[in-house]
Amino acid sequence: MKLLRVGTAGAERPALLDAEGTLRDLSGFVPDIDGSLLADAEALGRIRTAAEAGELPALDGAGLRVGPPLARIGKIVCIGLNYHDHARETGAEPPAEPVIFFKAADTVVGPHDTVLVPRGSTKTDWEVELAVVIGRTARYVGSAQEALAHVAGYAVAHDVSEREFQIERGGTWDKGKNCETFNPLGPWLVTADEVPDPQNLSLKLWVNGELKQNGTTAEQIFPVAEVVRYVSQFMTLYPGDVINTGTPAGVALGAPEPKPFLRAGDVVELEIEGLGRQRQEFKDA
Amino acid sequence: MKLLRVGTAGAERPALLDAEGTLRDLSGFVPDIDGSLLADAEALGRIRTAAEAGELPALDGAGLRVGPPLARIGKIVCIGLNYHDHARETGAEPPAEPVIFFKAADTVVGPHDTVLVPRGSTKTDWEVELAVVIGRTARYVGSAQEALAHVAGYAVAHDVSEREFQIERGGTWDKGKNCETFNPLGPWLVTADEVPDPQNLSLKLWVNGELKQNGTTAEQIFPVAEVVRYVSQFMTLYPGDVINTGTPAGVALGAPEPKPFLRAGDVVELEIEGLGRQRQEFKDA
Repeated sequence: MKLLRVGTAGAERPALLDAEGTLRDLSGFVPDIDGSLLADAEALGRIRTAAEAGELPALDGAGLRVGPPLARIGKIVCIGLNYHDHARETGAEPPAEPVIFFKAADTVVGPHDTVLVPRGSTKTDWEVELAVVIGRTARYVGSAQEALAHVAGYAVAHDVSEREFQIERGGTWDKGKNCETFNPLGPWLVTADEVPDPQNLSLKLWVNGELKQNGTTAEQIFPVAEVVRYVSQFMTLYPGDVINTGTPAGVALGAPEPKPFLRAGDVVELEIEGLGRQRQEFKDA
Repeated sequence: MKLLRVGTAGAERPALLDAEGTLRDLSGFVPDIDGSLLADAEALGRIRTAAEAGELPALDGAGLRVGPPLARIGKIVCIGLNYHDHARETGAEPPAEPVIFFKAADTVVGPHDTVLVPRGSTKTDWEVELAVVIGRTARYVGSAQEALAHVAGYAVAHDVSEREFQIERGGTWDKGKNCETFNPLGPWLVTADEVPDPQNLSLKLWVNGELKQNGTTAEQIFPVAEVVRYVSQFMTLYPGDVINTGTPAGVALGAPEPKPFLRAGDVVELEIEGLGRQRQEFKDA
Protein backbone atom coordinates (compact mmCIF):
# COMPACT_ATOMS: atom_id res chain seq x y z
CA MET A 1 0.00 0.00 0.00
CA LYS A 2 1.01 3.60 -0.57
CA LEU A 3 0.11 5.50 2.61
CA LEU A 4 0.31 9.26 2.79
CA ARG A 5 -0.90 12.29 4.74
CA VAL A 6 -2.50 15.29 3.05
CA GLY A 7 -3.53 18.72 4.24
CA THR A 8 -1.98 21.73 5.90
CA ALA A 9 1.08 21.23 8.07
CA GLY A 10 0.13 19.90 11.48
CA ALA A 11 -3.42 19.06 10.37
CA GLU A 12 -2.83 16.35 7.78
CA ARG A 13 -5.33 13.55 7.30
CA PRO A 14 -4.38 9.95 6.50
CA ALA A 15 -4.86 8.77 2.94
CA LEU A 16 -4.02 5.99 0.53
CA LEU A 17 -3.02 6.11 -3.10
CA ASP A 18 -4.67 3.14 -4.74
CA ALA A 19 -3.44 0.97 -7.62
CA GLU A 20 -5.28 3.18 -10.13
CA GLY A 21 -3.64 6.32 -8.77
CA THR A 22 -6.80 7.54 -7.01
CA LEU A 23 -6.38 9.24 -3.65
CA ARG A 24 -8.52 7.57 -0.94
CA ASP A 25 -9.52 9.00 2.42
CA LEU A 26 -8.48 6.92 5.44
CA SER A 27 -9.68 9.33 8.12
CA GLY A 28 -12.80 7.23 8.77
CA PHE A 29 -10.65 4.15 9.38
CA VAL A 30 -7.58 5.28 11.35
CA PRO A 31 -6.76 8.48 13.25
CA ASP A 32 -3.39 8.94 11.57
CA ILE A 33 -0.40 7.17 10.05
CA ASP A 34 2.06 6.69 12.87
CA GLY A 35 4.01 4.08 14.78
CA SER A 36 0.88 2.80 16.54
CA LEU A 37 -0.80 2.07 13.22
CA LEU A 38 2.31 0.44 11.75
CA ALA A 39 2.58 -1.84 14.79
CA ASP A 40 -1.09 -2.83 14.45
CA ALA A 41 -1.36 -5.61 11.87
CA GLU A 42 -5.09 -5.82 12.38
CA ALA A 43 -5.68 -2.12 11.58
CA LEU A 44 -3.40 -2.34 8.53
CA GLY A 45 -5.36 -5.41 7.44
CA ARG A 46 -8.63 -3.51 7.71
CA ILE A 47 -7.28 -0.76 5.46
CA ARG A 48 -6.05 -3.32 2.96
CA THR A 49 -9.37 -5.17 2.90
CA ALA A 50 -11.35 -1.95 2.51
CA ALA A 51 -9.04 -0.77 -0.27
CA GLU A 52 -9.37 -4.05 -2.18
CA ALA A 53 -13.14 -4.03 -1.74
CA GLY A 54 -13.30 -0.47 -3.11
CA GLU A 55 -14.79 0.79 0.14
CA LEU A 56 -12.49 3.75 0.72
CA PRO A 57 -14.01 7.10 -0.30
CA ALA A 58 -12.17 8.99 -3.02
CA LEU A 59 -10.53 12.22 -1.95
CA ASP A 60 -10.10 15.22 -4.22
CA GLY A 61 -6.38 15.82 -4.10
CA ALA A 62 -6.48 19.01 -6.20
CA GLY A 63 -4.63 21.74 -4.36
CA LEU A 64 -3.97 19.54 -1.33
CA ARG A 65 -0.50 19.73 0.19
CA VAL A 66 1.23 16.41 0.73
CA GLY A 67 2.71 16.17 4.22
CA PRO A 68 5.29 13.73 5.53
CA PRO A 69 3.74 10.24 5.39
CA LEU A 70 4.40 9.52 9.07
CA ALA A 71 3.19 11.40 12.16
CA ARG A 72 4.80 11.38 15.61
CA ILE A 73 8.16 10.16 14.35
CA GLY A 74 10.28 8.91 17.22
CA LYS A 75 13.92 9.19 16.30
CA ILE A 76 15.68 9.38 12.95
CA VAL A 77 18.85 7.31 12.91
CA CYS A 78 21.09 8.11 9.96
CA ILE A 79 23.78 5.95 8.41
CA GLY A 80 26.77 7.85 7.05
CA LEU A 81 29.04 6.88 4.16
CA ASN A 82 26.95 3.82 3.31
CA TYR A 83 27.54 3.73 -0.45
CA HIS A 84 30.84 2.63 -1.97
CA ASP A 85 30.71 5.39 -4.60
CA HIS A 86 29.85 8.15 -2.05
CA ALA A 87 32.64 7.09 0.33
CA ARG A 88 35.08 7.35 -2.60
CA GLU A 89 33.92 10.83 -3.66
CA THR A 90 34.29 12.24 -0.14
CA GLY A 91 37.79 10.76 0.15
CA ALA A 92 36.75 8.61 3.11
CA GLU A 93 37.67 4.97 3.60
CA PRO A 94 34.61 2.71 3.46
CA PRO A 95 33.70 2.33 7.15
CA ALA A 96 34.42 -0.99 8.86
CA GLU A 97 31.02 -0.80 10.56
CA PRO A 98 28.05 1.52 10.08
CA VAL A 99 28.51 5.20 10.95
CA ILE A 100 25.55 6.47 12.99
CA PHE A 101 24.35 10.03 13.45
CA PHE A 102 20.96 11.58 14.23
CA LYS A 103 18.40 13.92 12.78
CA ALA A 104 15.67 15.28 15.04
CA ALA A 105 12.09 14.43 14.07
CA ASP A 106 11.30 18.16 14.03
CA THR A 107 13.41 18.57 10.87
CA VAL A 108 10.84 16.57 8.88
CA VAL A 109 8.67 18.40 6.33
CA GLY A 110 6.54 17.28 3.41
CA PRO A 111 8.11 16.18 0.13
CA HIS A 112 7.26 19.40 -1.71
CA ASP A 113 7.66 21.87 1.15
CA THR A 114 10.14 24.72 1.06
CA VAL A 115 13.59 23.94 2.43
CA LEU A 116 15.43 26.73 4.22
CA VAL A 117 19.12 27.49 3.65
CA PRO A 118 20.33 28.27 7.20
CA ARG A 119 21.55 31.76 8.03
CA GLY A 120 25.29 31.95 7.53
CA SER A 121 25.33 28.82 5.38
CA THR A 122 27.63 28.60 2.36
CA LYS A 123 27.70 24.79 2.07
CA THR A 124 24.13 23.48 2.01
CA ASP A 125 24.15 20.15 0.21
CA TRP A 126 21.69 17.50 -1.00
CA GLU A 127 21.47 13.74 -0.32
CA VAL A 128 18.79 11.41 -1.69
CA GLU A 129 18.25 8.50 0.70
CA LEU A 130 16.15 5.40 1.18
CA ALA A 131 14.27 5.82 4.48
CA VAL A 132 13.31 2.69 6.38
CA VAL A 133 10.28 2.98 8.69
CA ILE A 134 10.19 0.68 11.71
CA GLY A 135 6.95 -1.18 12.45
CA ARG A 136 8.02 -3.60 15.18
CA THR A 137 10.35 -2.98 18.13
CA ALA A 138 13.89 -4.05 17.23
CA ARG A 139 16.15 -4.76 20.21
CA TYR A 140 19.29 -6.86 19.91
CA VAL A 141 18.06 -8.45 16.66
CA GLY A 142 19.99 -11.70 16.30
CA SER A 143 20.61 -11.78 12.56
CA ALA A 144 20.14 -9.80 9.37
CA GLN A 145 17.69 -12.52 8.29
CA GLU A 146 15.33 -11.57 11.11
CA ALA A 147 15.78 -7.82 10.69
CA LEU A 148 13.44 -7.06 7.78
CA ALA A 149 10.47 -8.35 9.79
CA HIS A 150 10.85 -5.13 11.85
CA VAL A 151 10.45 -2.89 8.81
CA ALA A 152 6.95 -1.51 8.10
CA GLY A 153 7.87 0.23 4.89
CA TYR A 154 10.03 2.58 2.90
CA ALA A 155 10.01 6.20 1.78
CA VAL A 156 12.13 8.79 0.00
CA ALA A 157 14.12 10.98 2.39
CA HIS A 158 16.16 14.06 1.60
CA ASP A 159 19.00 14.25 4.12
CA VAL A 160 19.78 17.94 3.59
CA SER A 161 23.20 18.73 5.06
CA GLU A 162 25.25 21.81 5.82
CA ARG A 163 28.86 20.73 5.27
CA GLU A 164 30.61 23.54 7.11
CA PHE A 165 28.39 23.00 10.17
CA GLN A 166 28.82 19.22 9.82
CA ILE A 167 32.58 19.01 9.34
CA GLU A 168 34.34 22.29 10.11
CA ARG A 169 32.69 23.53 13.31
CA GLY A 170 33.88 20.91 15.80
CA GLY A 171 32.01 18.02 17.35
CA THR A 172 29.83 15.52 15.58
CA TRP A 173 28.01 15.60 12.26
CA ASP A 174 24.71 16.35 14.04
CA LYS A 175 25.53 20.08 13.96
CA GLY A 176 25.06 20.19 10.19
CA LYS A 177 22.17 17.77 9.91
CA ASN A 178 19.48 19.31 12.11
CA CYS A 179 18.67 22.71 10.68
CA GLU A 180 14.92 23.31 10.37
CA THR A 181 13.25 21.73 7.29
CA PHE A 182 16.33 19.56 6.65
CA ASN A 183 14.45 16.27 6.22
CA PRO A 184 11.75 16.24 3.53
CA LEU A 185 10.05 12.82 3.71
CA GLY A 186 7.63 11.13 1.33
CA PRO A 187 5.42 11.47 -0.64
CA TRP A 188 4.44 7.93 0.36
CA LEU A 189 5.17 5.34 2.96
CA VAL A 190 5.21 2.22 0.77
CA THR A 191 4.55 -0.90 2.84
CA ALA A 192 7.34 -3.47 2.85
CA ASP A 193 5.30 -6.09 0.96
CA GLU A 194 5.49 -3.84 -2.12
CA VAL A 195 9.30 -3.54 -1.89
CA PRO A 196 10.43 -7.14 -2.27
CA ASP A 197 14.11 -6.23 -2.64
CA PRO A 198 15.25 -3.01 -0.94
CA GLN A 199 18.75 -3.62 -2.36
CA ASN A 200 17.67 -3.12 -5.94
CA LEU A 201 16.17 0.39 -6.06
CA SER A 202 17.43 3.22 -8.21
CA LEU A 203 17.83 6.64 -6.56
CA LYS A 204 18.03 9.88 -8.55
CA LEU A 205 18.39 13.54 -7.65
CA TRP A 206 18.34 16.62 -9.84
CA VAL A 207 19.32 20.22 -9.05
CA ASN A 208 17.64 22.81 -11.28
CA GLY A 209 16.84 20.00 -13.71
CA GLU A 210 20.37 18.63 -13.93
CA LEU A 211 20.88 15.01 -12.84
CA LYS A 212 23.37 14.99 -9.94
CA GLN A 213 22.87 11.64 -8.20
CA ASN A 214 22.08 8.45 -10.08
CA GLY A 215 22.65 5.48 -7.84
CA THR A 216 21.26 2.19 -6.71
CA THR A 217 20.80 0.65 -3.28
CA ALA A 218 22.79 -2.30 -4.65
CA GLU A 219 25.83 -0.09 -3.89
CA GLN A 220 25.04 0.07 -0.16
CA ILE A 221 27.99 -1.06 1.93
CA PHE A 222 25.63 -2.24 4.69
CA PRO A 223 22.28 -3.37 3.30
CA VAL A 224 19.01 -2.48 5.03
CA ALA A 225 18.72 -5.78 6.91
CA GLU A 226 22.26 -5.48 8.29
CA VAL A 227 21.69 -1.83 9.22
CA VAL A 228 18.58 -2.70 11.26
CA ARG A 229 20.39 -5.60 12.98
CA TYR A 230 23.44 -3.46 13.69
CA VAL A 231 21.62 -0.39 15.00
CA SER A 232 19.51 -2.59 17.29
CA GLN A 233 22.68 -3.63 19.17
CA PHE A 234 23.27 -0.01 20.24
CA MET A 235 19.76 1.34 20.71
CA THR A 236 16.21 0.07 20.62
CA LEU A 237 14.22 0.88 17.50
CA TYR A 238 10.52 1.50 18.06
CA PRO A 239 7.51 1.61 15.68
CA GLY A 240 7.54 5.06 14.11
CA ASP A 241 11.32 5.39 14.14
CA VAL A 242 13.03 6.04 10.81
CA ILE A 243 16.45 5.06 9.49
CA ASN A 244 17.94 7.15 6.69
CA THR A 245 20.23 4.62 5.07
CA GLY A 246 22.80 6.85 3.38
CA THR A 247 23.31 8.51 0.02
CA PRO A 248 25.01 7.47 -3.23
CA ALA A 249 27.68 9.53 -5.01
CA GLY A 250 26.97 12.90 -6.60
CA VAL A 251 26.64 15.38 -3.74
CA ALA A 252 28.05 18.90 -3.96
CA LEU A 253 30.75 18.05 -1.41
CA GLY A 254 32.16 15.47 -3.84
CA ALA A 255 32.24 17.85 -6.86
CA PRO A 256 35.34 19.74 -8.05
CA GLU A 257 35.78 23.35 -6.92
CA PRO A 258 33.86 25.58 -6.97
CA LYS A 259 31.47 23.10 -5.38
CA PRO A 260 27.86 23.75 -6.39
CA PHE A 261 26.29 24.15 -2.94
CA LEU A 262 22.63 25.12 -2.77
CA ARG A 263 21.32 28.67 -2.57
CA ALA A 264 17.91 30.30 -2.33
CA GLY A 265 16.07 29.82 -5.61
CA ASP A 266 17.50 26.39 -6.34
CA VAL A 267 15.08 23.55 -6.99
CA VAL A 268 15.90 19.99 -5.98
CA GLU A 269 13.96 17.00 -7.21
CA LEU A 270 14.54 13.45 -6.05
CA GLU A 271 13.08 10.06 -6.74
CA ILE A 272 13.41 6.46 -5.69
CA GLU A 273 12.03 3.71 -7.88
CA GLY A 274 8.52 2.85 -6.71
CA LEU A 275 8.60 5.25 -3.76
CA GLY A 276 7.69 8.48 -5.51
CA ARG A 277 9.19 11.85 -6.20
CA GLN A 278 9.93 15.01 -4.20
CA ARG A 279 10.45 18.60 -5.34
CA GLN A 280 11.68 21.39 -3.07
CA GLU A 281 12.38 25.01 -3.66
CA PHE A 282 15.14 26.43 -1.46
CA LYS A 283 14.72 29.77 0.31
CA ASP A 284 16.72 31.71 2.86
CA ALA A 285 15.94 31.09 6.53
CA MET B 1 7.88 25.49 41.30
CA LYS B 2 9.04 21.89 41.45
CA LEU B 3 7.02 20.00 38.84
CA LEU B 4 7.13 16.25 38.60
CA ARG B 5 5.29 13.23 37.23
CA VAL B 6 4.41 10.24 39.39
CA GLY B 7 2.99 6.80 38.65
CA THR B 8 3.80 3.78 36.55
CA ALA B 9 5.87 4.28 33.41
CA GLY B 10 3.75 5.63 30.59
CA ALA B 11 0.85 6.47 32.92
CA GLU B 12 2.37 9.18 35.11
CA ARG B 13 0.21 11.99 36.48
CA PRO B 14 1.41 15.59 36.86
CA ALA B 15 2.27 16.75 40.36
CA LEU B 16 3.93 19.53 42.28
CA LEU B 17 6.19 19.40 45.29
CA ASP B 18 5.25 22.38 47.44
CA ALA B 19 7.45 24.52 49.65
CA GLU B 20 6.64 22.32 52.67
CA GLY B 21 7.67 19.18 50.79
CA THR B 22 4.09 17.97 50.31
CA LEU B 23 3.24 16.28 47.04
CA ARG B 24 0.28 17.95 45.31
CA ASP B 25 -1.87 16.54 42.52
CA LEU B 26 -2.02 18.62 39.33
CA SER B 27 -4.11 16.23 37.28
CA GLY B 28 -7.23 18.33 37.81
CA PHE B 29 -5.46 21.40 36.44
CA VAL B 30 -3.34 20.26 33.51
CA PRO B 31 -3.29 17.07 31.45
CA ASP B 32 0.47 16.59 31.78
CA ILE B 33 3.81 18.35 32.10
CA ASP B 34 5.08 18.80 28.58
CA GLY B 35 6.19 21.41 26.07
CA SER B 36 2.64 22.70 25.59
CA LEU B 37 2.31 23.45 29.29
CA LEU B 38 5.73 25.05 29.51
CA ALA B 39 4.87 27.33 26.59
CA ASP B 40 1.60 28.34 28.23
CA ALA B 41 2.31 31.12 30.73
CA GLU B 42 -1.37 31.35 31.61
CA ALA B 43 -1.62 27.65 32.58
CA LEU B 44 1.60 27.86 34.57
CA GLY B 45 0.21 30.93 36.31
CA ARG B 46 -2.96 29.04 37.26
CA ILE B 47 -0.88 26.29 38.86
CA ARG B 48 1.18 28.85 40.74
CA THR B 49 -1.88 30.70 42.01
CA ALA B 50 -3.59 27.49 43.10
CA ALA B 51 -0.44 26.30 44.85
CA GLU B 52 -0.02 29.57 46.70
CA ALA B 53 -3.70 29.55 47.69
CA GLY B 54 -3.34 26.01 49.02
CA GLU B 55 -5.95 24.74 46.55
CA LEU B 56 -3.99 21.80 45.18
CA PRO B 57 -5.05 18.47 46.68
CA ALA B 58 -2.35 16.56 48.54
CA LEU B 59 -1.24 13.31 46.95
CA ASP B 60 -0.05 10.31 48.92
CA GLY B 61 3.40 9.71 47.48
CA ALA B 62 4.06 6.52 49.43
CA GLY B 63 5.10 3.79 47.03
CA LEU B 64 4.60 5.99 44.00
CA ARG B 65 7.28 5.78 41.32
CA VAL B 66 8.70 9.10 40.18
CA GLY B 67 8.81 9.32 36.39
CA PRO B 68 10.74 11.76 34.23
CA PRO B 69 9.35 15.26 34.93
CA LEU B 70 8.63 15.98 31.27
CA ALA B 71 6.37 14.10 28.84
CA ARG B 72 6.61 14.11 25.04
CA ILE B 73 10.19 15.32 24.99
CA GLY B 74 11.12 16.56 21.51
CA LYS B 75 14.84 16.26 21.05
CA ILE B 76 17.70 16.06 23.52
CA VAL B 77 20.67 18.13 22.39
CA CYS B 78 23.83 17.32 24.33
CA ILE B 79 26.91 19.46 24.77
CA GLY B 80 30.18 17.55 24.96
CA LEU B 81 33.37 18.52 26.83
CA ASN B 82 31.73 21.57 28.38
CA TYR B 83 33.66 21.67 31.67
CA HIS B 84 37.30 22.76 31.86
CA ASP B 85 38.13 19.99 34.35
CA HIS B 86 36.39 17.24 32.30
CA ALA B 87 38.11 18.29 29.07
CA ARG B 88 41.46 18.01 30.88
CA GLU B 89 40.75 14.54 32.31
CA THR B 90 39.80 13.12 28.92
CA GLY B 91 42.95 14.57 27.34
CA ALA B 92 40.91 16.73 24.95
CA GLU B 93 41.61 20.37 24.16
CA PRO B 94 38.83 22.65 25.42
CA PRO B 95 36.62 23.02 22.33
CA ALA B 96 36.68 26.34 20.46
CA GLU B 97 32.90 26.18 20.13
CA PRO B 98 30.29 23.88 21.66
CA VAL B 99 30.38 20.20 20.68
CA ILE B 100 26.88 18.94 19.88
CA PHE B 101 25.59 15.39 19.89
CA PHE B 102 22.15 13.86 20.41
CA LYS B 103 20.28 11.53 22.69
CA ALA B 104 16.90 10.18 21.59
CA ALA B 105 13.93 11.04 23.80
CA ASP B 106 13.19 7.32 24.12
CA THR B 107 16.31 6.90 26.30
CA VAL B 108 14.67 8.91 29.09
CA VAL B 109 13.57 7.09 32.25
CA GLY B 110 12.67 8.20 35.75
CA PRO B 111 15.33 9.30 38.24
CA HIS B 112 15.20 6.07 40.26
CA ASP B 113 14.51 3.61 37.46
CA THR B 114 16.85 0.74 36.62
CA VAL B 115 19.55 1.52 34.08
CA LEU B 116 20.61 -1.28 31.74
CA VAL B 117 24.24 -2.05 30.92
CA PRO B 118 24.07 -2.83 27.20
CA ARG B 119 24.87 -6.32 25.98
CA GLY B 120 28.52 -6.53 25.05
CA SER B 121 29.38 -3.40 27.05
CA THR B 122 32.62 -3.20 29.02
CA LYS B 123 32.81 0.60 29.26
CA THR B 124 29.51 1.92 30.62
CA ASP B 125 30.19 5.28 32.30
CA TRP B 126 28.37 7.91 34.33
CA GLU B 127 27.93 11.68 33.77
CA VAL B 128 25.94 14.01 36.03
CA GLU B 129 24.57 16.94 33.98
CA LEU B 130 22.46 20.04 34.31
CA ALA B 131 19.50 19.63 31.93
CA VAL B 132 17.92 22.77 30.49
CA VAL B 133 14.26 22.49 29.46
CA ILE B 134 13.07 24.78 26.68
CA GLY B 135 9.79 26.66 27.16
CA ARG B 136 9.81 29.08 24.23
CA THR B 137 10.90 28.46 20.65
CA ALA B 138 14.52 29.51 20.18
CA ARG B 139 15.54 30.20 16.59
CA TYR B 140 18.58 32.31 15.73
CA VAL B 141 18.62 33.90 19.17
CA GLY B 142 20.55 37.13 18.82
CA SER B 143 22.51 37.22 22.06
CA ALA B 144 23.23 35.24 25.22
CA GLN B 145 21.35 37.96 27.13
CA GLU B 146 18.13 37.02 25.34
CA ALA B 147 18.69 33.28 25.59
CA LEU B 148 17.57 32.51 29.15
CA ALA B 149 14.07 33.81 28.36
CA HIS B 150 13.66 30.61 26.31
CA VAL B 151 14.40 28.36 29.29
CA ALA B 152 11.41 26.99 31.21
CA GLY B 153 13.41 25.26 33.89
CA TYR B 154 16.15 22.89 34.93
CA ALA B 155 16.52 19.28 36.00
CA VAL B 156 19.13 16.68 36.88
CA ALA B 157 20.10 14.47 33.92
CA HIS B 158 22.28 11.40 33.93
CA ASP B 159 24.00 11.19 30.53
CA VAL B 160 24.90 7.49 30.73
CA SER B 161 27.54 6.70 28.11
CA GLU B 162 29.17 3.59 26.67
CA ARG B 163 32.72 4.67 25.85
CA GLU B 164 33.67 1.86 23.49
CA PHE B 165 30.49 2.41 21.47
CA GLN B 166 31.01 6.19 21.64
CA ILE B 167 34.68 6.39 20.70
CA GLU B 168 36.05 3.11 19.35
CA ARG B 169 33.33 1.85 16.98
CA GLY B 170 33.54 4.47 14.22
CA GLY B 171 31.25 7.38 13.46
CA THR B 172 29.88 9.90 15.91
CA TRP B 173 29.38 9.81 19.67
CA ASP B 174 25.67 9.08 19.21
CA LYS B 175 26.46 5.33 19.00
CA GLY B 176 27.40 5.23 22.67
CA LYS B 177 24.81 7.67 23.99
CA ASN B 178 21.51 6.14 22.93
CA CYS B 179 21.26 2.73 24.57
CA GLU B 180 17.89 2.14 26.22
CA THR B 181 17.46 3.72 29.70
CA PHE B 182 20.59 5.88 29.16
CA ASN B 183 18.99 9.18 30.23
CA PRO B 184 17.48 9.22 33.73
CA LEU B 185 15.84 12.64 34.19
CA GLY B 186 14.45 14.34 37.30
CA PRO B 187 13.12 14.02 39.94
CA TRP B 188 11.83 17.56 39.36
CA LEU B 189 11.59 20.16 36.67
CA VAL B 190 12.43 23.28 38.68
CA THR B 191 11.08 26.39 37.00
CA ALA B 192 13.68 28.94 35.98
CA ASP B 193 12.48 31.58 38.47
CA GLU B 194 13.78 29.32 41.26
CA VAL B 195 17.24 29.02 39.67
CA PRO B 196 18.45 32.63 39.61
CA ASP B 197 22.02 31.68 38.61
CA PRO B 198 22.44 28.45 36.61
CA GLN B 199 26.22 29.05 36.65
CA ASN B 200 26.52 28.54 40.38
CA LEU B 201 25.16 25.05 41.04
CA SER B 202 27.11 22.21 42.59
CA LEU B 203 26.86 18.79 40.91
CA LYS B 204 27.77 15.55 42.68
CA LEU B 205 27.75 11.89 41.72
CA TRP B 206 28.48 8.78 43.79
CA VAL B 207 29.10 5.20 42.69
CA ASN B 208 28.35 2.61 45.38
CA GLY B 209 28.50 5.42 47.92
CA GLU B 210 31.88 6.76 46.84
CA LEU B 211 31.96 10.39 45.64
CA LYS B 212 33.22 10.41 42.03
CA GLN B 213 32.13 13.77 40.60
CA ASN B 214 32.08 16.96 42.63
CA GLY B 215 31.82 19.93 40.33
CA THR B 216 30.11 23.22 39.78
CA THR B 217 28.45 24.76 36.76
CA ALA B 218 30.82 27.71 37.31
CA GLU B 219 33.37 25.48 35.49
CA GLN B 220 31.25 25.33 32.30
CA ILE B 221 33.24 26.46 29.27
CA PHE B 222 30.04 27.64 27.58
CA PRO B 223 27.41 28.78 30.09
CA VAL B 224 23.74 27.90 29.67
CA ALA B 225 22.80 31.22 28.02
CA GLU B 226 25.58 30.89 25.44
CA VAL B 227 24.69 27.25 24.80
CA VAL B 228 21.05 28.15 24.04
CA ARG B 229 22.13 31.02 21.78
CA TYR B 230 24.70 28.88 19.99
CA VAL B 231 22.51 25.82 19.44
CA SER B 232 19.72 28.03 18.07
CA GLN B 233 21.97 29.06 15.17
CA PHE B 234 22.12 25.45 13.94
CA MET B 235 18.69 24.10 14.81
CA THR B 236 15.42 25.38 16.18
CA LEU B 237 14.71 24.58 19.82
CA TYR B 238 11.05 23.98 20.66
CA PRO B 239 9.14 23.88 23.96
CA GLY B 240 9.73 20.42 25.42
CA ASP B 241 13.23 20.09 24.00
CA VAL B 242 16.04 19.42 26.47
CA ILE B 243 19.71 20.38 26.46
CA ASN B 244 22.11 18.27 28.53
CA THR B 245 24.85 20.81 29.19
CA GLY B 246 27.86 18.56 29.82
CA THR B 247 29.54 16.90 32.77
CA PRO B 248 32.33 17.94 35.18
CA ALA B 249 35.46 15.85 35.87
CA GLY B 250 35.36 12.51 37.61
CA VAL B 251 33.99 10.02 35.06
CA ALA B 252 35.38 6.47 34.75
CA LEU B 253 36.95 7.34 31.38
CA GLY B 254 39.17 9.90 33.15
CA ALA B 255 40.33 7.51 35.89
CA PRO B 256 43.63 5.60 35.87
CA GLU B 257 43.63 1.99 34.65
CA PRO B 258 41.87 -0.22 35.42
CA LYS B 259 39.06 2.25 34.81
CA PRO B 260 36.07 1.62 37.07
CA PHE B 261 33.34 1.25 34.45
CA LEU B 262 29.86 0.30 35.63
CA ARG B 263 28.58 -3.24 35.93
CA ALA B 264 25.31 -4.88 36.95
CA GLY B 265 24.79 -4.38 40.66
CA ASP B 266 26.41 -0.95 40.82
CA VAL B 267 24.38 1.88 42.31
CA VAL B 268 24.80 5.45 41.07
CA GLU B 269 23.45 8.46 42.94
CA LEU B 270 23.59 11.99 41.64
CA GLU B 271 22.48 15.38 42.82
CA ILE B 272 22.43 18.99 41.71
CA GLU B 273 21.95 21.74 44.26
CA GLY B 274 18.25 22.62 44.45
CA LEU B 275 17.26 20.21 41.66
CA GLY B 276 17.02 16.98 43.63
CA ARG B 277 18.67 13.61 43.72
CA GLN B 278 18.62 10.45 41.60
CA ARG B 279 19.50 6.85 42.46
CA GLN B 280 19.80 4.07 39.91
CA GLU B 281 20.67 0.43 40.21
CA PHE B 282 22.40 -0.98 37.15
CA LYS B 283 21.37 -4.32 35.65
CA ASP B 284 22.28 -6.26 32.55
CA ALA B 285 20.19 -5.62 29.42
